[in-house]
Amino acid sequence: MPDKAKTFMLITLGEELLLGLTRNGHLTYIGDQLRQRGITLRSNYTISDENRDIDEQFAFCWDRADVLITTGGLGPTVDDRTKEAIANALGESLVLDQSILESIQERFRQIGRPMSDNNRKQAYRPESAVALENPNGTAPGLWLEKEGKILIMLPGPPNELQPLFENQVLPRLERLGWIAQGESYLQIRSIGIGESALETELRPLFDQYENLAVAYCAHQGQVDCRINFQNGNGQEEKLHQIGEECRRLLGADFLGYGHESLPEIVLNYLAEREQTLALAESFTGGQIANAITDIPGASKVFNGSVVCYSNEVKINVLGVPEETIREHTAVSAPVAEAMAIQAAKTMNSDYAISATGYAGPEGGSEKTPAGTVFLALHTPEGTEVQRYQWKIGRLAIKRRALHTALDLLRRKLVGIS
Amino acid sequence: MPDKAKTFMLITLGEELLLGLTRNGHLTYIGDQLRQRGITLRSNYTISDENRDIDEQFAFCWDRADVLITTGGLGPTVDDRTKEAIANALGESLVLDQSILESIQERFRQIGRPMSDNNRKQAYRPESAVALENPNGTAPGLWLEKEGKILIMLPGPPNELQPLFENQVLPRLERLGWIAQGESYLQIRSIGIGESALETELRPLFDQYENLAVAYCAHQGQVDCRINFQNGNGQEEKLHQIGEECRRLLGADFLGYGHESLPEIVLNYLAEREQTLALAESFTGGQIANAITDIPGASKVFNGSVVCYSNEVKINVLGVPEETIREHTAVSAPVAEAMAIQAAKTMNSDYAISATGYAGPEGGSEKTPAGTVFLALHTPEGTEVQRYQWKIGRLAIKRRALHTALDLLRRKLVGIS
Repeated sequence: MPDKAKTFMLITLGEELLLGLTRNGHLTYIGDQLRQRGITLRSNYTISDENRDIDEQFAFCWDRADVLITTGGLGPTVDDRTKEAIANALGESLVLDQSILESIQERFRQIGRPMSDNNRKQAYRPESAVALENPNGTAPGLWLEKEGKILIMLPGPPNELQPLFENQVLPRLERLGWIAQGESYLQIRSIGIGESALETELRPLFDQYENLAVAYCAHQGQVDCRINFQNGNGQEEKLHQIGEECRRLLGADFLGYGHESLPEIVLNYLAEREQTLALAESFTGGQIANAITDIPGASKVFNGSVVCYSNEVKINVLGVPEETIREHTAVSAPVAEAMAIQAAKTMNSDYAISATGYAGPEGGSEKTPAGTVFLALHTPEGTEVQRYQWKIGRLAIKRRALHTALDLLRRKLVGIS
Repeated sequence: MPDKAKTFMLITLGEELLLGLTRNGHLTYIGDQLRQRGITLRSNYTISDENRDIDEQFAFCWDRADVLITTGGLGPTVDDRTKEAIANALGESLVLDQSILESIQERFRQIGRPMSDNNRKQAYRPESAVALENPNGTAPGLWLEKEGKILIMLPGPPNELQPLFENQVLPRLERLGWIAQGESYLQIRSIGIGESALETELRPLFDQYENLAVAYCAHQGQVDCRINFQNGNGQEEKLHQIGEECRRLLGADFLGYGHESLPEIVLNYLAEREQTLALAESFTGGQIANAITDIPGASKVFNGSVVCYSNEVKINVLGVPEETIREHTAVSAPVAEAMAIQAAKTMNSDYAISATGYAGPEGGSEKTPAGTVFLALHTPEGTEVQRYQWKIGRLAIKRRALHTALDLLRRKLVGIS
């Protein structure tokens, strides 16, 4: 790693991004790639192909960045004018690159289509740029070193940009020593503790270390905390020590290191013990089963789910006693308990989770209004029911139930609740 | 619409976006919402919570925009400092807003958790700002009019931002006349036809009209086509005529107008006829049931799904004959057929869909390799099975099966297949 981290900026061009027609996947991809190499992307600017916007944004960034990456605008059509605008701003003229021209011609020969005049435009490059070969498209990437800075221009289609970035851009930056050789941070995942409570909990520990950068990221009931030393690599052991200290402080709320998801963690625990899981889902409507079966190899552990949206299905398919529903209503602790027990029994499984509730906006009563949720966990030792009251909207209630239910099981499996 | 369109800019704050940990969904969402109201977002700036970056970017945008929207940075932790930085740049002081404080306190009372001191920070607002109530979180949105411009600050979580944007921001902008009142375009949704085939099909029709703007957007087996006249509103009738012509040309591939999703369309058809639906899902793992139960009011139509990941569940819970599985294997047309018939029978439903297949990467045989999918549709008239072979990866196979299965049912319900 360099003594002082370089400043990386990204300009993503294309009106389709601003119109909400296409997600800005380049930001996510390039941000992630750089993060893995110890670099935090400083900023991202999404603009249209209007010349005045390109000029203004390029000048702003070229002033402030050590490495400026642009995506898009290298295509053959008239609205692709990034190259012209930027060459102009750098005081460079565009020259026809014979080897780029030949590789475009070769490409059209291979796919058996005539090369249009438009594509000839793609063979021009700023005079001091070198071409980065693009095996998946006609527009090559461009690499330009000037004034101690680097400009990297990449084609817009992800299947062209991504291999080019990994095979040509990253190795060049690594040779210059401007990015780290491998991942340089530690990610600590927590669950069941809010972002501000987590920060309050961990801050006294982190404050003991100089140059320790800390970033929190909350998503779907989890909070990830990433730590790294700002002065670079070679401190993996120290990071690991700090991580272990976090693990101790967090206790049951420590989910894991790295990138493993909650469903993966639960499935791995069960697979290690050669135990099995079944579900009975009312208002979650199959969401828990769906998240579990997104994981390859889920079939080793997961037997199935009865999505019982009607009382009839709860009774006839799952075997919940009719009188339990009549006495307590479908959204009640006794019905949640019976659902979990019956799921384990009918699907011959060691563990079972059940979910019944009113996701809203309709349904519910005074005693159990919309947002009331019962989750039950059946284990070889017995069955427990939890009640929740959430005011967060139908889809958010389903999603929170998914994470809460899997976390109930995880805590049981790691023996900490 | 205003005589001269206003300039809208968006600043999305959050290091998690730059680190590639979270997609910049706010750009996609807000860009799309504004486009529907006749506005093209001029630019989007993604920056971290560093004060110098906020200051510099805010000054740049406030100079150029009529409406500046910011997202994120309103949370309770120390790295949430957008409000402070922007108030400072505007020469405003932050004042404690008693009604915001009370609604935060009320929120914590409801969820039964103690309010931390951090959260008190969220009750401050720039002196000339008004709060936009946020029923789904602690941080309200803020609306500030100054120097003939509007600053709109929104909380980062999508389930907070989106209702706030639709229920409070858009109506305010509409009252000012800065956005169009309704959608200024017509959206035609198609399914089962690729983007370039759709374009080829419709282009001769569209070419007959001057000033007709056409945009295609492909997602998850559907292609949406949006048309509008570039010279503005007041031509709804003509757009509708063109839409009807598209409908005629597309026949069975015409899905609908507007924004209704495939699960909504299917549920509405069934609700109109007072008919019911059940599912039997093997490799889709509850995904079809989950998509259906995302729709409010699904319980009127949907009885349930047996997610039968093991053969035992197919046999014991769903009632597929054991010998059918033994003879044909679980991934076969006869088993798909039996699953659909049994789903309709055990869950007492008019229609049933079943899905069995190998989503991969593991599983399969020479005759039925990973990617083999059988979908069966049971109707009051009989049962049909379709076989597919998809080479697109586990999650994509699950998702494609969801759309294909619902479309099979839709075509049956509209009587066009």
